[in-house]
Amino acid sequence: MEKTSTDAFPFTMNSSEKQETVCIFGTGDFGRSLALKMLQCGYSIVFGSRNPQKSSLLPNGAEVFSYSEAARKSDIIIIAVHREHYGFLTELTEVLKGKTLVDISNNLKINQYPESNAEYLAQLVPGAHVVKAFNTISAWALQSGALDANRQVFVCGNDSKAKQRVMDIVRTLGLTPLDQGSLMAAKEIENYPLQLFPMWKFPFYLSAFLCVFFFFYCVVRDVIYPYVNGGKDSTFRMAISIPNRVFPIAALTLLALVYLPGVIAAILQLYRGTKYRRFPDWLDHWMLCRKQLGLVALGFASLHVLYTLVIPIRYYVRWTMKNRTITQATAKREDPFSTSTAWLSDSYVALGILGFFLFVLLGITSLPSVSNTVNWREFRFVQSKLGYLTLILCTAHTMVYGGKRFLSPSSLIWYLPSAYVIALIIPCIVLVIKFVLVLPCIDRTLTRIRQGWERNAKPTLNGERYLKQSSVHLDSEL
Amino acid sequence: MEKTSTDAFPFTMNSSEKQETVCIFGTGDFGRSLALKMLQCGYSIVFGSRNPQKSSLLPNGAEVFSYSEAARKSDIIIIAVHREHYGFLTELTEVLKGKTLVDISNNLKINQYPESNAEYLAQLVPGAHVVKAFNTISAWALQSGALDANRQVFVCGNDSKAKQRVMDIVRTLGLTPLDQGSLMAAKEIENYPLQLFPMWKFPFYLSAFLCVFFFFYCVVRDVIYPYVNGGKDSTFRMAISIPNRVFPIAALTLLALVYLPGVIAAILQLYRGTKYRRFPDWLDHWMLCRKQLGLVALGFASLHVLYTLVIPIRYYVRWTMKNRTITQATAKREDPFSTSTAWLSDSYVALGILGFFLFVLLGITSLPSVSNTVNWREFRFVQSKLGYLTLILCTAHTMVYGGKRFLSPSSLIWYLPSAYVIALIIPCIVLVIKFVLVLPCIDRTLTRIRQGWERNAKPTLNGERYLKQSSVHLDSEL
Amino acid sequence: MEKTSTDAFPFTMNSSEKQETVCIFGTGDFGRSLALKMLQCGYSIVFGSRNPQKSSLLPNGAEVFSYSEAARKSDIIIIAVHREHYGFLTELTEVLKGKTLVDISNNLKINQYPESNAEYLAQLVPGAHVVKAFNTISAWALQSGALDANRQVFVCGNDSKAKQRVMDIVRTLGLTPLDQGSLMAAKEIENYPLQLFPMWKFPFYLSAFLCVFFFFYCVVRDVIYPYVNGGKDSTFRMAISIPNRVFPIAALTLLALVYLPGVIAAILQLYRGTKYRRFPDWLDHWMLCRKQLGLVALGFASLHVLYTLVIPIRYYVRWTMKNRTITQATAKREDPFSTSTAWLSDSYVALGILGFFLFVLLGITSLPSVSNTVNWREFRFVQSKLGYLTLILCTAHTMVYGGKRFLSPSSLIWYLPSAYVIALIIPCIVLVIKFVLVLPCIDRTLTRIRQGWERNAKPTLNGERYLKQSSVHLDSEL
Repeated sequence: MEKTSTDAFPFTMNSSEKQETVCIFGTGDFGRSLALKMLQCGYSIVFGSRNPQKSSLLPNGAEVFSYSEAARKSDIIIIAVHREHYGFLTELTEVLKGKTLVDISNNLKINQYPESNAEYLAQLVPGAHVVKAFNTISAWALQSGALDANRQVFVCGNDSKAKQRVMDIVRTLGLTPLDQGSLMAAKEIENYPLQLFPMWKFPFYLSAFLCVFFFFYCVVRDVIYPYVNGGKDSTFRMAISIPNRVFPIAALTLLALVYLPGVIAAILQLYRGTKYRRFPDWLDHWMLCRKQLGLVALGFASLHVLYTLVIPIRYYVRWTMKNRTITQATAKREDPFSTSTAWLSDSYVALGILGFFLFVLLGITSLPSVSNTVNWREFRFVQSKLGYLTLILCTAHTMVYGGKRFLSPSSLIWYLPSAYVIALIIPCIVLVIKFVLVLPCIDRTLTRIRQGWERNAKPTLNGERYLKQSSVHLDSEL
Repeated sequence: MEKTSTDAFPFTMNSSEKQETVCIFGTGDFGRSLALKMLQCGYSIVFGSRNPQKSSLLPNGAEVFSYSEAARKSDIIIIAVHREHYGFLTELTEVLKGKTLVDISNNLKINQYPESNAEYLAQLVPGAHVVKAFNTISAWALQSGALDANRQVFVCGNDSKAKQRVMDIVRTLGLTPLDQGSLMAAKEIENYPLQLFPMWKFPFYLSAFLCVFFFFYCVVRDVIYPYVNGGKDSTFRMAISIPNRVFPIAALTLLALVYLPGVIAAILQLYRGTKYRRFPDWLDHWMLCRKQLGLVALGFASLHVLYTLVIPIRYYVRWTMKNRTITQATAKREDPFSTSTAWLSDSYVALGILGFFLFVLLGITSLPSVSNTVNWREFRFVQSKLGYLTLILCTAHTMVYGGKRFLSPSSLIWYLPSAYVIALIIPCIVLVIKFVLVLPCIDRTLTRIRQGWERNAKPTLNGERYLKQSSVHLDSEL
Repeated sequence: MEKTSTDAFPFTMNSSEKQETVCIFGTGDFGRSLALKMLQCGYSIVFGSRNPQKSSLLPNGAEVFSYSEAARKSDIIIIAVHREHYGFLTELTEVLKGKTLVDISNNLKINQYPESNAEYLAQLVPGAHVVKAFNTISAWALQSGALDANRQVFVCGNDSKAKQRVMDIVRTLGLTPLDQGSLMAAKEIENYPLQLFPMWKFPFYLSAFLCVFFFFYCVVRDVIYPYVNGGKDSTFRMAISIPNRVFPIAALTLLALVYLPGVIAAILQLYRGTKYRRFPDWLDHWMLCRKQLGLVALGFASLHVLYTLVIPIRYYVRWTMKNRTITQATAKREDPFSTSTAWLSDSYVALGILGFFLFVLLGITSLPSVSNTVNWREFRFVQSKLGYLTLILCTAHTMVYGGKRFLSPSSLIWYLPSAYVIALIIPCIVLVIKFVLVLPCIDRTLTRIRQGWERNAKPTLNGERYLKQSSVHLDSEL
């Protein structure tokens, strides 16, 4: 009688009258850490082991039995052995029937096996309820009470009751369970701790390519050309002068590439006359990593700011200025003051500062804890309105920097224009298209399409297509 | 028997044996997105529609019925139609009796209707349990698994059991439910997604006013006066020189305005001899947006730092320095080194750097995720002690900047003092009052009042007054 | 019948049919704030008071009774009186039997009493279930709906059912309960709100010592020596020049001290041939405050950056440069341009910028909300790989700064080497040891030890020792 109600209502299980017992198969490092933490939180722990005598490192208070004996003592069994050794579980099918098996395993490589470990376990022991959990937690995070460690535990499983019980345990251990749905999510959960910044790969490689390309472009113009034409050694420019050309170019290009997929998507929607058709894969992927592109661009912009601010400290700059002054003083000649040059110089600098300031604001609002405190409308306002303003300011900063020299033939070296001219191409394209798109007549059509209107009604769409439309939403917002 | 207990205890409902069925009225964009997400999380979905045949865009697995048919299949019905079309629900009163209706609607304007949509729904269908939820979530956030989107779902309702069930659904969808109490909170929840930074309005308009005022003040002194008196064209100063005067003034004034309401409140409490009387509304509102005032001030301070650091790069500055050097070199005259000027210059810069550094620290601790990891005492220490230290350093920075010129008649132009002299007024007032308030004799009385002591005991206070006292607490802390 | 099930299953208690009644003992400030918030969230409140008539400030809707009368009306009683007045509860033992007592008290000092207030309460009223909660929340945080206030409520108690009910109340009030286990955790929870940055103490005192020591070291070399040797007044150097030497030294030393305990731990493990022995306490503590050490180092590095960037604005620097130019112009002598000096100057600056940039990245990823979104592998990558790269760049920056003068006898003043030479000692030691440790042969042994291999198998370890091993994990990662 008592037992029945316990099965039915997991929330009353760990009452003080009787401690809940959890069984752990395997006495490895993580199993022991988990056991210790659970003992501290008031659970009883029994270990199941092939060789119950040998385990000398187990925490105080835990008992060790054979696998089948241990399994009999608890309804919930944590499988803390490697997937390769799951085989022995087939012999325990009888005793594991109806029990909850918690798969905590990880692999060494992404997509190492055709099916996830948890699904494999569910096939091996068909009568048990398999729940995937704890694989994203390190043994260290389990032990340390640090509030800022990653405490999210992804949980999935086909049996909701079993999943609820595991999530209760997670919560009792002071961690945050995140329900990821059915066992089909296990593959993704198992891949998660093996990932190394997957969304950053494309921005990283792209920016590496941009940097290398523009670095050599500038080396040709600023180092090789003076050497060939005058034998001048300007190699020292590679430390600061050239990076300080490459970084702003990379920043501006990447920032423009944040907004380019949005306008491409809008053109596609206008052309197709519907939002209910999925975008090409490359566009979908591009749109999903816009935040990362933007943050990499912000990184380059910050480096550009630092490299610019140290200019007056550099030996080369000090030497040049001193020598120019001495030459003029010796010749007793004074430059007249040019108000237009002062205007150009000051407005170029001011535009850059304001653009960078807004850029940093965008970066701060993309911090998870900040974006959690704003509502959707505010987030959209910051990321879209302020974002475009940033792009406009930074593009104007680059244009004013060019000033009068812009596209003048004298700035061509070996037929190569200045690097910043190339950097302006993508931002200008984005801004021009965006300007066309916000013209009232076009904006009206686009808004109607995004609210669900279709030029030619399309017949049934299946669920998968529907899912993909979500990215259009993002697009309509950002 | 089994079934009855299932009805009674929502946490065991979504067990694997039987999938919970949720009904959605309306097949619009958001209804379909919600349906798809719920299907992915293991729910069964039935749509209720006026015209069950027409809906071709619905996700796979969902069925469509007439409204009454669909409502019969589930205990929980999500109303995904606009408030204007709620009328048809009156005909379904019978079938909706005792069921949970989830109002997910939003309006187009703040306070568009006299009562909230959810309360209106509750009046229309008196027998049902209305719960407000999901209105703060965008269709896109529902679909994307992004961890950093805004995942908070505000939930309110009069029936706790119905509310619990909705909160369980929210949690299962991977979102974070926040219980906001009874249906009276619905109006606020419906206004929430329509707000655009409401707490930032006052700081924004105030700082805009300060900027415009001081900008024209400086234009008069630095551009118009030289033009009138000598025909000199100094318009280029409007790009950097004048903003770099306006920004620090705005920053210092706003920072002082963060601490001014606190000292006003203390004076009011001392005068009244009690903390149990609510403050004037303007003071309450002012105290609630101090964080925003402080962050705007930090923004201006950051701009001031950037504008200051670019000084040596500017053409005007380089030209001036070069010419001055040439003139002296030609005249073969050298300035003697003045140790006191070096002291003034260096200490003014050092005070500014330290003040800015502390200011940034204050800004970082006001990030939500950082302030969550400190306890109340630490938060108070940072925001109050470090805050006043920042104010003192920044005020001293401005004073030393003035140096010997401070208030000297020669710096008056058209009877207008330098702008920084005006900027010092509020900070100095705040610091002087604060200094008086921390004198032991006054501090003792104030502390007693804030611990509940009253000079003249006041009779009964109702709940609303009590609520307003809360801001006094803040005041006693910050 | 109805009542029994209510007792058994707390989650169905606050259904709309009957409001849950909560009793509060004591009518002080915090008790009243709590009552008001609970009334707003739909609870019924009864106050228990020694003198039921006198309480005039209570919120509307709450009733006041004598202690025993009030206690009879509710199963859950919040004790909002000071520990010193707990005595009267012994007389109520009968009526409190089986009820849940919530201890919300705080002390004035850390470890003020031998046992925690909650444990003391449990001894006084043996028949009741004592739960510790709410002590970390301020009355103000209770009232304000601000999303970013500290909303975490630590809860502990021996009776899980009672604890669950209290955690439900916490959740209903819109706060976040964190289960901290049994009542043994009460002491720590009671100390928590009294702490003032405990993990920051060691880094703070260490950095204060470093600053003071290097400040006086530099004063001796740069102020006293010139005064003694030439009567030159260089006191103004104490405002910027000397801090700008002290801050980078402190930053580099602290950064190296972040990585030193890791290599010490590795050496210890290699020497002992096992990871299953706890480290000395000082090493454990040192490893736990590495994050704080790193952030303090980042603070000094930021100050160093600001102090460096203002160099060209300083009067002293401008005067020196102008005079040097004038002297050369008068002598009609020009310095030849030295490419190697340009290389040294530029690469020193570039290394510093890149090091600082990575350092800031490290700081950003240590923000709680950012570190929550990365998995363990990514966190390790950033904090370990990028961390060492930062250390290498900053050390190289300092070495190149020294340039040719490095260790040359002419830079000795009173046998004292330049301060930066001393600053390089610890970083170089760390980098050399780390280089040895990553040599394949040693790395292989270390990895085996960290995976659990032991050179000499050790017999049983008790739980406490096991707990301490956790820090080894950290070490193996960072």
